[in-house]
Amino acid sequence: MSGIAFIKPDQRIIARRKEIVAQLAEFVPSDCLVNDPRELVPFETDGFTAYRRVPLAVVLPETTEQVSAIMKYLARENVPVVPRGAGTSLSGGAIPQEDAVVVGLSKMTRILEIDYPNRIARVQAGVTNINISNEVDADGFFYAPDPSSQLACTIGGNIGMNSGGAHCLKYGVTTNNLLGVKMVLFDGTVVEFGGGALDAPGYDFSGLVCGSEGQLGIVTEATVRLIAKPEGARPVLFGFDSSEVAGACVAEIIGSGIIPVAIEFMDKPAIEICEAFAHAGYPLDVEALLIVEVEGSDAEMADTLVRIVEIAKRHEVKVVKESQSAMEAALIWKGRKSAFGATGRIADYICMDGTVPLSQLPYVLKETGRIVAEYGLRVANVFHAGDGNMHPLILYDVNDPEQARKAEECGMDLLRLCVDAGGCLTGEHGVGIEKRELMHHQYTQADLDQQMAARAAFDPAWIMNPSKVFPLDARGKGKTAA
Amino acid sequence: MSGIAFIKPDQRIIARRKEIVAQLAEFVPSDCLVNDPRELVPFETDGFTAYRRVPLAVVLPETTEQVSAIMKYLARENVPVVPRGAGTSLSGGAIPQEDAVVVGLSKMTRILEIDYPNRIARVQAGVTNINISNEVDADGFFYAPDPSSQLACTIGGNIGMNSGGAHCLKYGVTTNNLLGVKMVLFDGTVVEFGGGALDAPGYDFSGLVCGSEGQLGIVTEATVRLIAKPEGARPVLFGFDSSEVAGACVAEIIGSGIIPVAIEFMDKPAIEICEAFAHAGYPLDVEALLIVEVEGSDAEMADTLVRIVEIAKRHEVKVVKESQSAMEAALIWKGRKSAFGATGRIADYICMDGTVPLSQLPYVLKETGRIVAEYGLRVANVFHAGDGNMHPLILYDVNDPEQARKAEECGMDLLRLCVDAGGCLTGEHGVGIEKRELMHHQYTQADLDQQMAARAAFDPAWIMNPSKVFPLDARGKGKTAA
Repeated sequence: MSGIAFIKPDQRIIARRKEIVAQLAEFVPSDCLVNDPRELVPFETDGFTAYRRVPLAVVLPETTEQVSAIMKYLARENVPVVPRGAGTSLSGGAIPQEDAVVVGLSKMTRILEIDYPNRIARVQAGVTNINISNEVDADGFFYAPDPSSQLACTIGGNIGMNSGGAHCLKYGVTTNNLLGVKMVLFDGTVVEFGGGALDAPGYDFSGLVCGSEGQLGIVTEATVRLIAKPEGARPVLFGFDSSEVAGACVAEIIGSGIIPVAIEFMDKPAIEICEAFAHAGYPLDVEALLIVEVEGSDAEMADTLVRIVEIAKRHEVKVVKESQSAMEAALIWKGRKSAFGATGRIADYICMDGTVPLSQLPYVLKETGRIVAEYGLRVANVFHAGDGNMHPLILYDVNDPEQARKAEECGMDLLRLCVDAGGCLTGEHGVGIEKRELMHHQYTQADLDQQMAARAAFDPAWIMNPSKVFPLDARGKGKTAA
Repeated sequence: MSGIAFIKPDQRIIARRKEIVAQLAEFVPSDCLVNDPRELVPFETDGFTAYRRVPLAVVLPETTEQVSAIMKYLARENVPVVPRGAGTSLSGGAIPQEDAVVVGLSKMTRILEIDYPNRIARVQAGVTNINISNEVDADGFFYAPDPSSQLACTIGGNIGMNSGGAHCLKYGVTTNNLLGVKMVLFDGTVVEFGGGALDAPGYDFSGLVCGSEGQLGIVTEATVRLIAKPEGARPVLFGFDSSEVAGACVAEIIGSGIIPVAIEFMDKPAIEICEAFAHAGYPLDVEALLIVEVEGSDAEMADTLVRIVEIAKRHEVKVVKESQSAMEAALIWKGRKSAFGATGRIADYICMDGTVPLSQLPYVLKETGRIVAEYGLRVANVFHAGDGNMHPLILYDVNDPEQARKAEECGMDLLRLCVDAGGCLTGEHGVGIEKRELMHHQYTQADLDQQMAARAAFDPAWIMNPSKVFPLDARGKGKTAA
């Protein structure tokens, strides 16, 4: 079924598309509309890539007013809406349905306000994550959440998925750095919540909108926290004889009250894959590696490192290697950040995303190995250890349907393992399509009912990104979008 | 109308109370019920004290199960519910109505779990703020938000009001330190949201519940962030020739990227009042004083201070006085923390609570003086300057009704000033009864409608703390509780 060129388009869909596009054309300039089937291809899927579906149309508005007019029309026509940032989402959150219009924010890329005394930036939703930091870099500031897709992904998408990144251990994920939003509701109403202050009166929807995967409205503007760049930062490598010991070391570092900027974990397969690709100087004679980044003044970094090394020694650390230059530091991070790409060179993989309490890290790492082996598959673990955000990469051969099925099942088992260990189904990738059925494993029906009741307060007609987040059999009548 | 001894109780209310108490007695032990009118007196008001109203009854459950049974019964009977922590709230959020049952959490004081590797504490909602810190103090941790009522106020109340404190500049307010809740909905359903992880799947209600003033449900358990205590902390006094200059200095400190733990502001009236009371060593020959607290290692504190002093010099600072001992440091804070009590010794006052963008601080301070003078009143300003959270204390004579009226009107004008300057109606005290009509000044009707729609997703019958937060004329049919 791959390759839309071989599919004969349904005449009704063509007619419907034509009608909708004609209407949408009244709200936006002509270069903001996509309806040529060939041009719709990039919008068929996202970083999850498990499904491809051609939406009715794609509209790329340039202003909040345009978004409002579009939403008003689509609500009247009862047309489902799928909001989209850069489409880098990893759980299928931006994959459209055939009966939906995609509202993409990629043309709304203006930085509206930079305000240092209040430490905020107000930006349009289509601004890329990295561009916020680029804008304030020369003045000594940055925007903290740093998903590995930060060159491409948008702040609107980050809000939808509550995105994280390697440095979220110290600075938190999107929800900890978002102060306010301007949002267009399903019926075109424009609302604003939060703002520059720590506590807005009434209800604070900023946290609710973070991670709501485009189901509550379309965020068109965001006010985010700016943070001063540290004086310096230094990644240090710690090599261990086993994953379990490395995991226990992480738990003790955090348990002692030290919060490095980042603690990244790699097991032996991940080390080998990344080292072969990036020549980052990783030790190859260890079973597990931690990249611990400290920051601050030289004295501060030295002091924190002494304390971390002391803890690592109690866990029989085999290798401690400080980066000696900015180039070495960059190489260490290059190795880590290329992990997914480097893995893709040697095998197909699916990357899972779950979170576990740090005290459970050694147990979960051991169980992960056991479960993957039972499926006859291999795993590489490379993840944000400091906040317990696991990313097992399950390696398989995409041309072997049996292996593909096993990999998918295995992934679901690993997520259940995270929940059963007291953790949760997501770290930063969201629920999307991929994990929606597993929501039963995380929540009671009462919990899900309350979430859906809140959803209904924003989208009573269930037309906003309707196929995502909630299990099909938990939704109730008429909410069947799959 | 003061003193309930002179009011002849309404026979219908007595009968209704009897009936409800008889039913509630089936769910809780007898010492958990309050229905003797004399014993109801402490529950008639909160720290706002503008109104006193005797509720139907007060119930003090000991478990989540009891809360659930109580709520199920009260929902069936359509009896309004007012959740209550310690009753220290300052905007009337815990003041009952005559037809309501108060559900007090003061017996739910257990600390359920301390987990250092995951940096979390799980506690019952009636635990006092200070007790969380006390519990983990010996191990080098603390819970960051520190309202001045922290000896008495409960974590449940802190969540309801999204409480702050002097040290929230660095560590954030309650919403920045709350990770998850167990909550009983209006109909007795028990739900759980959030948890130890940075990103929970599905919708995150933790941020929504923070500051919702008991209208979404009754929080019975909270999971909060623990933070490692700094090596050391040191308050430093900076005296200036005018409030405007001191305000501009604060904006430049924060704008330069430095985040001290606290920047507290006092104008001359506040300095005089506090110094007379606490002998804190404040300079009396300046017009405005900043208490700037830095923390960390000695080297870190020294380094940060050098940078702050440099900025202060550019603003022609008159006095810089470092605390030379732990005792001096404690005295400096004693002076600040006794500001409200010390003011109460010399005059009646109302304390307002609004937030402004730091860049607007000099303007707002100047305008505050002008507005208060126009009313023929005096003001003392003592507040959390680092995050723009103003607390003008308007001084008046409670025995002069004309002055009392003027003070109240003046307070409302000052809050409008905050909103018009780009800020908001609250910093940490909530909306309650005091500011509900001003919500029109902050929000459009569309914003308020969306907030009430979200409220309805949790409390369709409008029985949870129904008189608070929303303006009477914005609510729509049947939502008239005043």
